Amino acid sequence: MTLNSADTAFRDRLAGDLPDDIFRAADARYLEEPRGRYAGQQALLALPRTAQEVSTLIRHAQDARVGVVPYGGGTGLVGGQVAPDGPAPLILSLERMNKVRDVYPDENVLVAEAGVILADVQAAAEAVERLFPLSLAAEGSARIGGNLATNAGGTGVLRYGNARDLCLGLEAVLPDGQIWNGLTRLRKNNTGYDLRHLLIGAEGTLGVITAAALKLFPKPARSGTALMVVQSPRAALDLLSLAKAQLGEMISAFELIHRQGFEFLTETLPEVRHPFATAPEWCVLIDVGLSGDLDPSEALETLFAAAHEAGLVDDGLIAQNEAQSADFWNIREMIPEANRLIGSVSSHDISVPLGAIPEFIRKAGETLARIGDFRINCFGHVGDGNLHYNVFPVKGKSRLDYDPQRTAIKTAVHDLVQEMGGSFSAEHGIGRLKRGDLETYGDVAKLSAMRAIKSALDPAGIMNPGAVLNV
Amino acid sequence: MTLNSADTAFRDRLAGDLPDDIFRAADARYLEEPRGRYAGQQALLALPRTAQEVSTLIRHAQDARVGVVPYGGGTGLVGGQVAPDGPAPLILSLERMNKVRDVYPDENVLVAEAGVILADVQAAAEAVERLFPLSLAAEGSARIGGNLATNAGGTGVLRYGNARDLCLGLEAVLPDGQIWNGLTRLRKNNTGYDLRHLLIGAEGTLGVITAAALKLFPKPARSGTALMVVQSPRAALDLLSLAKAQLGEMISAFELIHRQGFEFLTETLPEVRHPFATAPEWCVLIDVGLSGDLDPSEALETLFAAAHEAGLVDDGLIAQNEAQSADFWNIREMIPEANRLIGSVSSHDISVPLGAIPEFIRKAGETLARIGDFRINCFGHVGDGNLHYNVFPVKGKSRLDYDPQRTAIKTAVHDLVQEMGGSFSAEHGIGRLKRGDLETYGDVAKLSAMRAIKSALDPAGIMNPGAVLNV
Repeated sequence: MTLNSADTAFRDRLAGDLPDDIFRAADARYLEEPRGRYAGQQALLALPRTAQEVSTLIRHAQDARVGVVPYGGGTGLVGGQVAPDGPAPLILSLERMNKVRDVYPDENVLVAEAGVILADVQAAAEAVERLFPLSLAAEGSARIGGNLATNAGGTGVLRYGNARDLCLGLEAVLPDGQIWNGLTRLRKNNTGYDLRHLLIGAEGTLGVITAAALKLFPKPARSGTALMVVQSPRAALDLLSLAKAQLGEMISAFELIHRQGFEFLTETLPEVRHPFATAPEWCVLIDVGLSGDLDPSEALETLFAAAHEAGLVDDGLIAQNEAQSADFWNIREMIPEANRLIGSVSSHDISVPLGAIPEFIRKAGETLARIGDFRINCFGHVGDGNLHYNVFPVKGKSRLDYDPQRTAIKTAVHDLVQEMGGSFSAEHGIGRLKRGDLETYGDVAKLSAMRAIKSALDPAGIMNPGAVLNV
Repeated sequence: MTLNSADTAFRDRLAGDLPDDIFRAADARYLEEPRGRYAGQQALLALPRTAQEVSTLIRHAQDARVGVVPYGGGTGLVGGQVAPDGPAPLILSLERMNKVRDVYPDENVLVAEAGVILADVQAAAEAVERLFPLSLAAEGSARIGGNLATNAGGTGVLRYGNARDLCLGLEAVLPDGQIWNGLTRLRKNNTGYDLRHLLIGAEGTLGVITAAALKLFPKPARSGTALMVVQSPRAALDLLSLAKAQLGEMISAFELIHRQGFEFLTETLPEVRHPFATAPEWCVLIDVGLSGDLDPSEALETLFAAAHEAGLVDDGLIAQNEAQSADFWNIREMIPEANRLIGSVSSHDISVPLGAIPEFIRKAGETLARIGDFRINCFGHVGDGNLHYNVFPVKGKSRLDYDPQRTAIKTAVHDLVQEMGGSFSAEHGIGRLKRGDLETYGDVAKLSAMRAIKSALDPAGIMNPGAVLNV
């Protein structure tokens, strides 16, 4: 079905039903995406203040067959927020729906509108001595509606789950303009199909999330951080098993760092302090958040001693204070920036079954070596089986030198992931960047069910056209 | 769309494509449900051994427009497993798909076929020193496929979540007969709409789950149980907050028990040992599962002392050994049986926002007092906001004496739940029993989306016809 442009006639029709200050010129930031891979075309930008206004906008778009691109913080990495081609869409930014509507500390629930910035959700939880554990690099500008629409991951998944696991209820506008009031604060509610989980991760293609009831958690009484040098990815996994046996759910983060990450930091961000005199081949950043009078240093020392005894770790540092803990985390958090400065040939946000990680790393390295010479920075949320497997030029070359090999690299990595029962998009989603991968690697039955659901809920295909599915 | 009967002609057509021993006479147990509220009619019973055979059955049913009723352990409480009217269906029992396919202790994953009995899943986890935390009264006969199809709850939800939270991936046969291979063991996988969460809780109306990848957990190193006498439901919630502040996620269960429960036990099951000389008005059963060398008795004593200091608890018992812990749990677990022996006028599996529980209990009591004289047993998973609010005859009367009031009671309770933002079906689902409630209380936009999804995936309406939606 062809869509129409959000032209002046369309705007004029909207103007009759909506206050005029809802519209604004779509300046550059609404048409870009962080990695500069796409540029959106000119579009009509609307900034509604209420779910009712979102509904009015969508009803008009439905009547006029105009595409609607929901826009949160614009930090998505797969082009879900920009429409580079097709008729000019209506960009629907949630930024004015930025109120934390309610906080219920005793229930461990917070109700936020979709446009609240993730860091502000975290701060509102902190203000009542609770934790909202979704945490990721873009948290200062990403908005919670976008985090939910894309089922964001990050560093807290190991303990607290993905964005979808942190959501109790949603308010959303469906493609026909109906407002679904599913903003319950219930921990148990078995009354029909779970629309919440269908909209979460649908990247705006089945409706617009306007508010969410979010789970909060008690803040761990005391936290601690350690960097442990492991002999191999296999040893990292064994260390994780050991840590879980000793501390159960109290392991808050478990991040793998490769030597290449340290070297990129040295090369691009020399001011970042390094904890080890010599960068280790592999190390793991561990965070624990403890309850019940447990002492973090003691717990981490006990873990290290047992891991050393078992031959899993060679060396380790336990943060002695918050500043040192922040230094350790700074290493992990600056690696993506160092990667950006080096300029990757091809980046892969993949996951495999936990037990398959060592084999994946080995095989992927062998496969890429057959394609050419690269520097590989493999790091990330190893406790979730989620690795950022990023391929870079050797020194003296630039990413452009590898243009002819880019497709072969990506295909080799994704083929291997598929063969090992993994996912070619662990936490970033599909957007417009990975639509082809979804066609190639997606399960046939699932794809046909997805298409049927999309046509059933959005028969004219107005919601985020071109994202996720090539309907 | 009208369906056809699973008649001998249909069976003959199936016989050409499937081994003959797949069929068996549908004896009484396939046509009953635990509370005896419905009786299913005669039907064709098939017991497939593989997803491929399930697919063949469904394709034939689709061609012939024959209804398919998926059957697990038959323990559901809302009639999702029996079709009392309409043309004779094909009952598709998963009982022969009863293999634990794989266990991955290091990944904390277990892959089970849909027909594995819940207790057998728990045992397979236990065999590798892991915990599968889904736990409910019917676990000795309920099958995991049914637990997932109905998103079962139980006593472990507070710490570990509902059935849907324990599932990483599914294998399922969709209504068109396609096998969806979504049996991933991934913790992160953002590749399109989440079919898993759509099938979980859909009660067999969108397809048949044939296998699942399930999350396991490290077993807490040491566990402890306490019964604490609280002054009110409000005090129970404050005790929960205190417990979470002290022990975080290590609170494994938090169950409310009312005096009425003890009295019903005395009346119907006098052999059950009571822990208190006088039954308290309200008490709470608390389970903790601790890691990191924490001592359960010490942790529970610390909690009791702080709660006593805060005026929340009057009295308490901490189990000194496993036998005593089992005695405490026996009280909780025998209450549903005592209820059954008394015979309820009306039972309600409701949830409300946690903070609204005291008000709900007060208002519901007042409302029912205006309708008549009853004994009310209100108990259950208070940590999840989920109460079993069951209404019984006064002594000397039977449930039949209240027939004229039954609808008024149910409506009063459900209206109040709705007014307070709660759910009229917290963990049991809709089935055939609560379809009318879903029409009455369901969100209009959600219902229309549900109908659109149902028609899109199952246009002929063959999957569990009459369950959940009155399409």
